[in-house]
Amino acid sequence: MDMLWSGWGDPARATPLPGTVIGLLRDLLGVKPRGAEPVGLTDIAVPEGQLEPAVHQALVAAVGGEEYVRTDAETRIRHTRGKSTPDLLRIREGDVADTPAAVLLPAGHDEVFAVLRACAEHGLALVPFGGGTSVVGGLAPGRGTFVALDLRRMDGLLALDPVSRTATLQPGLRAPQAEALLADHGFTLGHFPQSYEWATIGGFAATRSSGQASAGYGRFDEMVLGLTLATPEGTVDTGRAPRSAAGPDLRQLVLGSEGAFGVITSVTVRVRPVPQTRLYEGWRFASFEEGAAALRRLAQDGPRPTVLRLSDETETLIGLAQPDAIGASDAPTAAGCTAIAGYEGTVEDVSYRQERAAVVLRECGGTPLGEEPGERWAHGRYSAPYLRDALLDAGAFAETLETATFWSRVPELYSAVRDALTGTLTEQGTPPLVMCHISHVYENGASLYFTVVCAQGEDPVAHWTRAKHAANEAILAAGGTITHHHGVGTDHRDWYVREAGPLAVEALRAVKRRLDPDGLLNPGVLLPLDD
Amino acid sequence: MDMLWSGWGDPARATPLPGTVIGLLRDLLGVKPRGAEPVGLTDIAVPEGQLEPAVHQALVAAVGGEEYVRTDAETRIRHTRGKSTPDLLRIREGDVADTPAAVLLPAGHDEVFAVLRACAEHGLALVPFGGGTSVVGGLAPGRGTFVALDLRRMDGLLALDPVSRTATLQPGLRAPQAEALLADHGFTLGHFPQSYEWATIGGFAATRSSGQASAGYGRFDEMVLGLTLATPEGTVDTGRAPRSAAGPDLRQLVLGSEGAFGVITSVTVRVRPVPQTRLYEGWRFASFEEGAAALRRLAQDGPRPTVLRLSDETETLIGLAQPDAIGASDAPTAAGCTAIAGYEGTVEDVSYRQERAAVVLRECGGTPLGEEPGERWAHGRYSAPYLRDALLDAGAFAETLETATFWSRVPELYSAVRDALTGTLTEQGTPPLVMCHISHVYENGASLYFTVVCAQGEDPVAHWTRAKHAANEAILAAGGTITHHHGVGTDHRDWYVREAGPLAVEALRAVKRRLDPDGLLNPGVLLPLDD
Repeated sequence: MDMLWSGWGDPARATPLPGTVIGLLRDLLGVKPRGAEPVGLTDIAVPEGQLEPAVHQALVAAVGGEEYVRTDAETRIRHTRGKSTPDLLRIREGDVADTPAAVLLPAGHDEVFAVLRACAEHGLALVPFGGGTSVVGGLAPGRGTFVALDLRRMDGLLALDPVSRTATLQPGLRAPQAEALLADHGFTLGHFPQSYEWATIGGFAATRSSGQASAGYGRFDEMVLGLTLATPEGTVDTGRAPRSAAGPDLRQLVLGSEGAFGVITSVTVRVRPVPQTRLYEGWRFASFEEGAAALRRLAQDGPRPTVLRLSDETETLIGLAQPDAIGASDAPTAAGCTAIAGYEGTVEDVSYRQERAAVVLRECGGTPLGEEPGERWAHGRYSAPYLRDALLDAGAFAETLETATFWSRVPELYSAVRDALTGTLTEQGTPPLVMCHISHVYENGASLYFTVVCAQGEDPVAHWTRAKHAANEAILAAGGTITHHHGVGTDHRDWYVREAGPLAVEALRAVKRRLDPDGLLNPGVLLPLDD
Repeated sequence: MDMLWSGWGDPARATPLPGTVIGLLRDLLGVKPRGAEPVGLTDIAVPEGQLEPAVHQALVAAVGGEEYVRTDAETRIRHTRGKSTPDLLRIREGDVADTPAAVLLPAGHDEVFAVLRACAEHGLALVPFGGGTSVVGGLAPGRGTFVALDLRRMDGLLALDPVSRTATLQPGLRAPQAEALLADHGFTLGHFPQSYEWATIGGFAATRSSGQASAGYGRFDEMVLGLTLATPEGTVDTGRAPRSAAGPDLRQLVLGSEGAFGVITSVTVRVRPVPQTRLYEGWRFASFEEGAAALRRLAQDGPRPTVLRLSDETETLIGLAQPDAIGASDAPTAAGCTAIAGYEGTVEDVSYRQERAAVVLRECGGTPLGEEPGERWAHGRYSAPYLRDALLDAGAFAETLETATFWSRVPELYSAVRDALTGTLTEQGTPPLVMCHISHVYENGASLYFTVVCAQGEDPVAHWTRAKHAANEAILAAGGTITHHHGVGTDHRDWYVREAGPLAVEALRAVKRRLDPDGLLNPGVLLPLDD
């Protein structure tokens, strides 16, 4: 099944907002119904004939058949940019400036390498494409004609080692497919980001994804034991041992490289037994500060839940953390902040951790809310992007951004980003609701995930761009990282360069020049274009 | 205090072998007393005047005083090579071919940078020097005149964040100094490699050290949250957040770079509360295979001890795992394999893990030996290098090597390396004792640490070189990594290049050329010299 071209997910699951919410948006944020309907898929004209016949033939030869080089309008539109809110607003207006000239469907590593050689020979830029769920402009290269390399045919489980608990997966596997293949052997990856239903293994690796169960299973980059990278200059194959002192960790050079160094053609991951049981609970804290202190204590001293997250006061009140519950009669309305603590594992282990963690959470001021809020969160955990579509349809603007820092800097970073978003959007005449949650905790720090909802105003993309830039500046000034798990893409690139510093960026450009001398891989994504 | 120039550690702690052991070595391995006494420190003549006066003056200016540019023979001898057995045999014969022209003692980052600029200007190679404990030729560059950069004056705690539980340490801090500074604030790093008493924070980072408590505290590279690297081209400063999706992890590019990219001038690490209590226990298994299966189960399903190690049958029998016990009347002599499981933490946590782990270990066939073997191990945990000195004095040859792989490959790797060592040394007329232990466990695999003892024979360095090369080939063929925690240096370089593969090595050389365009930093260490 293909994702909705102009929004998120399975079109059959689209849900309009209840009237009560539309009323709330109008009264609270001044949201007005949209004037114009979005364009239809078949109304969009994409430029044709962008590939010379010789180039087209070289690509056909590389992927083994005409049917694997798609140039029809619908396929190209479906591979245009990603799923950020500006991406959706643009595609809904029929803006296909960033459409690939063709979409290639290679069947394996050797075909990927053949495509890269063909691209190098013809000076053609290439964008690797997994689930197409980038929200940071990771699929829109900076210049010229390019082709998209859709990895969906590379969707196999290549190897499973039950003794070592490792699995080698192809990059085009969507997460649910990967989970199904592993479940046949009694294993799970345990990686459940909000994009879970659509995103791919290769994309997780390329962007350092982090899932909602990261407290228990770790981030995706912590699960990876080996990678194969096809580059125009040959193959890099990493991961001879789970850990090694043999030089810099090459896996960590490929992870987060966002297609700029090469195409990830296999990923070897750590897998774990499918948990016997799962338990998700809600907790209430008087304030975000109090809740954050409780999360910190569990992250530092344990026992560590598998899922651990905390909504701030606004998010708790609005109930956007449980999008399915919006407007429902039992939606949480009490003051304070809701936390979710989830446990997955053996019955004994879940019971031990849940009981011990409950003692800690009570000591930190928490009030147990029971399993109902936890189950509600679990039920709605992949629904937020559907809600965004409904908000956009209703004339609202909704977008998210995220960062991370050390625990001692969390309060300052939280205030700085909130103030930047609120100030910039209010100045522009669209005062926002700014909500935040902590969804990933570490011994030494945590992520902050912000959701913004406001009226679309006259030019929502321009408004948001200003607000987002202000937030980026606030993040850098307050000592946060420009992205905790969304990646750099083109949207974060200029701030990433400042975060990493000029010499580090030059070192990465040296790597890119060695692996991709013609600069054809995802040009302008992650690293600036050469001058 | 300075380390013994011709051996290990504090000269006052040197211990000769008991007569019973000397008899055993003679009867079992044909070890004969050495013919010649080692040379004396003052008998060694080092080449003088290797630095032009202008270069000398530039270095003096960089480090702020004549007293910080040492050219006396003793200082230079003390900075000649590292502490591998071949290193010791060579220095005991007065071989100072790899002696630095001078030893520089910078006081901080800016002075290090000034030294690097001076070296670049004068085309002078430079070797960063921490504790001088390399056992892989990491301090002996491949060619020409060079200076050693001894970081001992950079021994401060620069920052401590008790909320985030992070500390920023200078690279010249020895581990016990670092522990003392952290203990003043109630924290520990938890990094206890066998070189603990002498090795430095910068060295741990540069070589991806792993400590004996890695099951609980992680490897050193897992503790590092940020690094500052001074290079001839400027500074790289990493670590804005504990985790980030902002591109490749630059920390993991600096970790393991062994001075080839720059000089690490500060390391920000995760720290933990000083444990309330410690408990070390011995366990007996019928075989190495059975014991390894038990370790695997704890590593994969928990509960995870803080220390977890297992000696094979030979090591258990010889009792080299408890060097202090050699020849003692209560040394373990029973058949089978001894494991040590150690627990550090709060009283409650230690008690819980110890009890649960004991159930698992029993289920896996283990017999508890109580705390005595655990305490004996803990007491002797840093003694093995002293024992090696005594063995060398007695005419024996003793050396170690290590590797790691995934669990399913452990048995094959174990046999392959043992066979390679035994075969090569026996062929050369010095049949060895080959002992092995697992000392670092992960969910997906484990390390193997081999100790070899044999007669010195006529040319022990040449004999060992052949045996070591055979072991390296066996490691590569059996799918292991060329080093789990000793590093690459010059000794492992050629096998490292094969392990990483040509394109990955080229990518790292591209980084080196960008950061060290004149190739002056640790030339020939980690990466091959340019053609």
